[in-house]
Amino acid sequence: MKKANKEAVRVIPLGGLEAVGMNMTAFEYADSLIVVDCGQSFPGDDMPGVDAVLPDITYLLQNREHVRALFLTHGHEDHIGAVPYMLQQLDIPIYGTRLTLGILRNKLEEFELPYEPRLIEVGYGSVITEGDFSVEFIRTNHSIADSAALAIESPAGIIFHTGDFKIDYTPVYGDHADLQRFGEIGKKGVLALLCDSTNAIRDGFTNSEKTVGRTIETIFTEHPNNRLIVATFASNVDRVQQIINCAIRHDRKVVVEGRSMVNIIGTASELGYINIPEGTLIDAESMKDYPDNRLVLITTGSQGESMAALSRMAASIHRRVSITPNDVIILSSNPIPGNEKSVAKVINDLCQLGATVIHQNTHVSGHACAEEIKLIYSLVEPQFAVPVHGEFRHRQAQARIAKQMGMDPRSIFLINSGDVLELSKKRAEVIGQVTSGTVLVDGLGVGDVGNIVLRDRQLLSQDGIIVVSLALDPNDGRILAGPEIFSRGFVYVREAENLIEEATAVTQKAVDDCLAGVADRVRLKNVIRDALGDFLWQKLKRRPMILPIIMECDV
Amino acid sequence: MKKANKEAVRVIPLGGLEAVGMNMTAFEYADSLIVVDCGQSFPGDDMPGVDAVLPDITYLLQNREHVRALFLTHGHEDHIGAVPYMLQQLDIPIYGTRLTLGILRNKLEEFELPYEPRLIEVGYGSVITEGDFSVEFIRTNHSIADSAALAIESPAGIIFHTGDFKIDYTPVYGDHADLQRFGEIGKKGVLALLCDSTNAIRDGFTNSEKTVGRTIETIFTEHPNNRLIVATFASNVDRVQQIINCAIRHDRKVVVEGRSMVNIIGTASELGYINIPEGTLIDAESMKDYPDNRLVLITTGSQGESMAALSRMAASIHRRVSITPNDVIILSSNPIPGNEKSVAKVINDLCQLGATVIHQNTHVSGHACAEEIKLIYSLVEPQFAVPVHGEFRHRQAQARIAKQMGMDPRSIFLINSGDVLELSKKRAEVIGQVTSGTVLVDGLGVGDVGNIVLRDRQLLSQDGIIVVSLALDPNDGRILAGPEIFSRGFVYVREAENLIEEATAVTQKAVDDCLAGVADRVRLKNVIRDALGDFLWQKLKRRPMILPIIMECDV
Repeated sequence: MKKANKEAVRVIPLGGLEAVGMNMTAFEYADSLIVVDCGQSFPGDDMPGVDAVLPDITYLLQNREHVRALFLTHGHEDHIGAVPYMLQQLDIPIYGTRLTLGILRNKLEEFELPYEPRLIEVGYGSVITEGDFSVEFIRTNHSIADSAALAIESPAGIIFHTGDFKIDYTPVYGDHADLQRFGEIGKKGVLALLCDSTNAIRDGFTNSEKTVGRTIETIFTEHPNNRLIVATFASNVDRVQQIINCAIRHDRKVVVEGRSMVNIIGTASELGYINIPEGTLIDAESMKDYPDNRLVLITTGSQGESMAALSRMAASIHRRVSITPNDVIILSSNPIPGNEKSVAKVINDLCQLGATVIHQNTHVSGHACAEEIKLIYSLVEPQFAVPVHGEFRHRQAQARIAKQMGMDPRSIFLINSGDVLELSKKRAEVIGQVTSGTVLVDGLGVGDVGNIVLRDRQLLSQDGIIVVSLALDPNDGRILAGPEIFSRGFVYVREAENLIEEATAVTQKAVDDCLAGVADRVRLKNVIRDALGDFLWQKLKRRPMILPIIMECDV
Repeated sequence: MKKANKEAVRVIPLGGLEAVGMNMTAFEYADSLIVVDCGQSFPGDDMPGVDAVLPDITYLLQNREHVRALFLTHGHEDHIGAVPYMLQQLDIPIYGTRLTLGILRNKLEEFELPYEPRLIEVGYGSVITEGDFSVEFIRTNHSIADSAALAIESPAGIIFHTGDFKIDYTPVYGDHADLQRFGEIGKKGVLALLCDSTNAIRDGFTNSEKTVGRTIETIFTEHPNNRLIVATFASNVDRVQQIINCAIRHDRKVVVEGRSMVNIIGTASELGYINIPEGTLIDAESMKDYPDNRLVLITTGSQGESMAALSRMAASIHRRVSITPNDVIILSSNPIPGNEKSVAKVINDLCQLGATVIHQNTHVSGHACAEEIKLIYSLVEPQFAVPVHGEFRHRQAQARIAKQMGMDPRSIFLINSGDVLELSKKRAEVIGQVTSGTVLVDGLGVGDVGNIVLRDRQLLSQDGIIVVSLALDPNDGRILAGPEIFSRGFVYVREAENLIEEATAVTQKAVDDCLAGVADRVRLKNVIRDALGDFLWQKLKRRPMILPIIMECDV
């Protein structure tokens, strides 16, 4: 890395800038380092058996004595999910708005920490000073309440980080984004803008959350005799509020299903982010006391997640709720990329049980489209632009928007995770890279599943494994037992008996030939692997993993 | 099954009515059985290592002496892909239009058949008689030329099968669908309509293929200095024709990349379905002789398939084509459900190489939307409706349309694969089920990968495998070697040495305890599996597959 300029501020994305999920960015000035967000990602199809994906915090641990604090923009998993893991290694204060910290507190209860974490609630407009940084929380709108943009000031200038946002002029809870403050800070002069790119390829504006409320109200009106089931994201508290408002207007009781939905509604209601009049909620057990037209279920599972409540209802394995032809199910969500097939499966299953499924115009995004991004650039007028939060094509689309707004292309940076972008009023450049990337969690293990293990799992899933076992007398090289062949995930063995016999013969011959000469164990294993591998490829055009085991017997 | 009514006709979907892919339907009257289409499906994420999915033809083999012929509606893989496999077991004549048979002939070249298959070309309006059936081919439009609807007449009445279709009043090649003939046959009286449901949940009409031509022309005009690369479905010959027309108008040479694209363009051009003036096509090797603005590449890979040409270009591993910032790439396709993430990956990779990617308004569907389906019902006016080709929700949407058109809900049948639907003018009912389902192909093996193998592959991919190996003297039960533990796909072993040591100790103890008592080999294996399984679950919350191997040594 080039020598850092002590008078400049450095922006270092440590989580997945390239893909959504796992958001985490470090900001560094002289000896002060602060972190914004610490999210987890969910494993892709190429990570079989993996439960969670965390950002690699090696760089923070290496600079442990400089790390001052963590600032959270909002309470979504991809922004707070890795906090418990980070806290196991790093005891730093955490700043966030009330709902964000409420949700984090819930999560932390499931983890054992050797100390009491320091969570510090911050209101909009408050400025927190940590080392050389002062951070101001500014109101935005998003698909979760209490989201914030951050104005991060250091002696090198102000960096404006939008967090995940949209502009909702008529939000369900609270006020619209504090565009006046955006403008005020813009007037002061902003060194760099880090702006959400998720919807940058979409023209126009994202609709207000209230438009969904109107659609849901219409569906309630059109189905006065049905039981209504609404599936949505647990964290979208405003969506839940609107469903509850509809339920009250239509004199229906509300049942909440799904662990995360129950948790978040509990937290939001405790903290005053949702208003549920007494007598509205009932237990699933009491459903039987009400006719269909007096009931609404609010449930998780809008992404077709196999263990979520709606999927279990669709598969007829939910303990308390059985779907009937009198059910109208509203999917108030869009499938997250990669979930399209599981969502389609849940819809088909529900249709086959006779239910009606409605999933058009029942959702709005929480992210700004192109025109909203232009508005932010107009208000903030940054010297440099660093599109964040989105796949490369989305961040590139924001770069195009910045160019359309008149920015010099050389002032726009499409950087990668681990890049160290150094910014000062004089110049901006990527001066080097630090360790970044992903750490995989499988069961209780953090980081013990690496590329080799993943590659093995993929190989195993393609053509299975063949184990060849052989017992030898180490003194004279005499074969005491075997070779025996065992397979798993290869072919259905009862139908392939001949094949296994032939394979055994091929292996036997290879072993005999090999033992006739001078052979160490490594060579013997290679000979078995080659002979059997060639045989199976010729015979079946398959390449199972082959694991030779040589037992040296103590006779 | 109920006793079949000899005077009735039976419709038996044998392939995947429930999901797109693997289309195959049997029609049976007295001793005559004909088959319509014989497609293959592509394996889902839940079928690791599987190459292709075929329909189970057990029912056809059981009724071998009644099976008269196979009729093909068009040349897509999901309608003709399983023909070679069927022909290996059943020698029957195959009827289809010219392009359909041309594409099939290409496929058959890769298979060895013990006889010369009988492919019989049929023109629109021709009527083929096989046993008690007369089948008329009627012109439709689709995303491949030469597609046909079939009017299948038996003494019990006419069944009208639309095949996959849309109504294109201004098709690129040939004429619009023969709606007059639809009407004539409708007037004669149609017993049942089997109509494509793919787009039944979409309102309105599907646009004409020509609208895509206009979009592509605009993109050519707007990018006079760039090299253009257009990715689309190889089988969409009309799309390819439009791209070639644009190339000629803009004085560009055309390079074709991707094996299936080369094959289908070859066949289509030989048979006169595509018109490529001499001197238009050039070899990839000659590209270097032309500047970017004189070139168009037409390529496969619009679905992000990892081995297809465009994906290899995006990954910078294509042998002949390197992407540059002067490339404009047009994805003339929509992602097929399940392919969204791979398509996004290809787009991101291309963007990172600096190319511009255009994928909006560059595709139209080949399937009829709701208003077109209504048109068909108006023209055909069937006594019974059997929505086909689509997920359950799509077929249900067509059922709703049929109801809106005034049909009695009891005359509409949402049947499943294997159902035997018996139809006569007096009544229609499902009288039973026959064997149906899927047969998996992996490498050269057809049918040897069943549920057990798939389940094992899934288990293996989740947490890997642990092999415990033990050599015993069978005479006295003395341990000669082991227990030794080997793992693959479990955890990164070098970091888990202690764990493996502990696990070995746990296993050793279990084995000793077990051998101290009376123990057969099965019990010993179970003891090992349980002890080790419990240990690993407690320690890591993981459940790898455990394979104990006991070698009995011949000392």
